Parts: sequence; structure tokens; C-alpha cells
Amino acid sequence: MKLFALSTAENGASMALFDGDEKVCSSYWASRQTHSRRLMSMVEQMIQVQAGLTVDVIDGFIAAKGPGSFTGLRIGISVIKGLAYSFSKPCAGISSLDGIAFGVGYSPDPVCVMMDAKRNEVYTALYRFEQGRLVHKGEESVCSPKHAVTKAGASALFVGSGSKAYREVILELTGGQARFSPPSVDSVSASAMIRIALASPALFESAENRLEPVYLRKSDAEIHFAGTIEKAKKGAS
Amino acid sequence: MKLFALSTAENGASMALFDGDEKVCSSYWASRQTHSRRLMSMVEQMIQVQAGLTVDVIDGFIAAKGPGSFTGLRIGISVIKGLAYSFSKPCAGISSLDGIAFGVGYSPDPVCVMMDAKRNEVYTALYRFEQGRLVHKGEESVCSPKHAVTKAGASALFVGSGSKAYREVILELTGGQARFSPPSVDSVSASAMIRIALASPALFESAENRLEPVYLRKSDAEIHFAGTIEKAKKGAS
Repeated sequence: MKLFALSTAENGASMALFDGDEKVCSSYWASRQTHSRRLMSMVEQMIQVQAGLTVDVIDGFIAAKGPGSFTGLRIGISVIKGLAYSFSKPCAGISSLDGIAFGVGYSPDPVCVMMDAKRNEVYTALYRFEQGRLVHKGEESVCSPKHAVTKAGASALFVGSGSKAYREVILELTGGQARFSPPSVDSVSASAMIRIALASPALFESAENRLEPVYLRKSDAEIHFAGTIEKAKKGAS
Repeated sequence: MKLFALSTAENGASMALFDGDEKVCSSYWASRQTHSRRLMSMVEQMIQVQAGLTVDVIDGFIAAKGPGSFTGLRIGISVIKGLAYSFSKPCAGISSLDGIAFGVGYSPDPVCVMMDAKRNEVYTALYRFEQGRLVHKGEESVCSPKHAVTKAGASALFVGSGSKAYREVILELTGGQARFSPPSVDSVSASAMIRIALASPALFESAENRLEPVYLRKSDAEIHFAGTIEKAKKGAS
């Protein structure tokens, strides 16, 4: 079974193509440019040039479903849904936080994933692995870095863009004990997403894997719009 | 400092470009085709198209120096030396076995890297990490899978193409206890090579990092040639 996965949940984009559990190719780039400008040509480059395949031989498509950048998620999910529908193939969504956590799945200590959500918040979840296998995952949430660290405890391994953005806060709250993953595993890995998908018993059928964006927080536009309505109501009364 | 790394030590090729400790882009493909045919266009694609850079802004070049495929190593080392000399930049070599081991650097158990060396042998070394940091590395050697497993012990995490090729032998020798990494971390990672390089105090000056191929074993041609000479001597005496 050939699977193609894409994450544009963050500034960086990650893509991977597997044949069964063998990685055929993978690619990552930390573009500050908008994903929309180059994404389709990068997808084409990977499938057709690097792997030497045509898109119609891919058996299923996977996108990072969030949390993450609103625009990034919408672009990635649209591309994957577009490919799946065009070629009548199934698609699924994998949590962005899972796609980071599994990159350090050999950690004997709890893994605290923190993605920088801006506005002094992080997208976070706590994982526990035993010998590379996930044995527990806490709830995904958006909260202050302080709240996330308090929940994780000082023994956790901190990973993700938020763990670097709030490094000083984390060190202060853990009395300098906190440990951090290397920066190069801080982003969502499309290869990890496929590994998670392959271990999922009903990948394309499971409700949990439905490809719908998981934002965890309202967009700035929604928050501003609600504020405007509130103000208008007050003005009218 | 911008570093570019390449490994063609195995069937798969891995490339990465970092700016300081931030990954700019990385790419992997498991080509069964000869590396020579597409390698230069893939290097160009990564540096110029993905990263949007010109080659002359790269500050140093790194190649996997072996052990591994004789032809693969020669191609990768030639490309990296060629780029370094053309642009008057330094180059260095990182062990292929290190480039695999650091991919599972969070393992609390010893890590036994085994690359399939064909002819019923593996290229191997034993590593011990503590919280992601290397604390011990055994000697690199080429030996029978059995010998490598006996040295590593049953508690090791087995990683690399050789650990999959000799999976049955390893399971038998460890009474079924052996654990294996997921297949997608079985190959040399150019990102891991750059992470190792960045942690190396005198990267481009150290004798240990000199870019000379490390074969660990004579090539088939040398073995056959020695045999021919031996035969000729016997015939002459």
C-alpha cells in the first residue's frame, strides 16, 4: 500500500511517501514563504521525479489535521482532499502533535509537545512511550506555557516550536531541570504521520482519523468578529 | 553557518541543509537506481529550488564517509569534495553508523547499529546514549551478525538495514527478546549527520572528521585481485 502524507501545520512543510512500511522518499523545508506558492510543485516533484511514480498509484492520502497555523492547515488539507477526490482514493487526518511526539518516541521520560500558538499560548499534549510504543496520550489543549509545564512536570522531555519559544519560562518553572529535544525534531514529521497511520487499525474508516481541521482555538477573525458584535449590541442597548 | 550534508552510503540517499542549528530542508529517497544518475540534479533542486539559495553561500560540506556501499560512498564523497573544492569551502566526513545511531538517540537502552554488508556480514557499532547525548561508542567493525548480537546483548535496540536482514538470527540469539527500531529510521540521516557535526568542537579541523572513505572491508575487486595474484604465485613456484 502506497501512502502519501503532508503537513503544513507550521512554517515548515513536511512530505513523505511510503510503500508499505518502507520509506520511498521524504522531504522537509522550513519555508517562510506561503505554502500556497510552491506546494503543488513540491508534491509533483516528490511523487513524479523523486519516486518516479504517477499520482494515481498512491493508495491513500494523509494530512496533518491540526492544531497549527489556520492558513497552513487549510492549504494542506485542501491539497490532500483535492488529490484524494481527484483520484477516488481515501484520505485521513493525523494530529500534528502526534506527528511531533513520535519523532522522540524512544524517550523513556514523558514527552511534552508544545507548538507555539502565538498570543502567549501553546498547543500541547503529554505523551508516554515505552520502548518506542505509545502507552498514554493526554488531551490536546491550548493553554499558557506555564499551565502546560505544570501539567507535564520537571521530568518531561520538551519538544516542538513552543518549547523553544518559551525555553526560559520552562527552565524557570522546572528549576533548570527541563530537557529539550534537538531543534531538528521540533516540527511535524510526515514520515512519523505515516508510521502512526500504519499502526492505526482502521486508518481510513476510523472517525478519529476523519480529515477535518482541529484548530483548538478560534481564529483571530472569529475572535475579532465576536468582539465587534458584542460592541454593537452594547451600543444598541 | 550554513551546512550541507549528503549520504549515499546505502541504497537510499539522504541530504540536508541547515542554517545554524535550524533545519532549512532535508530530503530522502530510497532509489534503487544508481546515485550517479540523479544525484547532482537532486542537490541542485534542494539548494536552489527548495532553499532558494546559491551554492556559494554554503559554509561547509559534509559526506557520510562510510562504512557502506563502495560505489555509493565514492559517489557521495566525490560530489561533496567537488562542491567544497569548487567553492573553496571546507568539507568533513561523518561515520554512516553514527548517522543511523543518532536517529534513535533517545533510546535508554544500548543501540546496536547493523548495516547489511552482504556476504553474511554487517557493519556494526554499539552506542549508549543518556537523555539524547552520546556517552559511549564502541569500535566500528565488520563481522558476522551473530558476533554483533553477542557483543550487543539482548537488551539492545537493533537498528539499521542489517537488523532487518538478520532479524530471525537476532531474535533466535536473544531468545525472542530483541527490539527493533521502526524501518523508517533504519538508514543514514543527513540531518543527524549535521547535528553530530554541530556538536563536534573542531568539525573541519579534526583528523577524525577527515573526508576519506572508511570501508572497514576490502572491496570484492581487491579480494578477487589478491586471490588471482596468490594463484599466479603458486603457479609460478
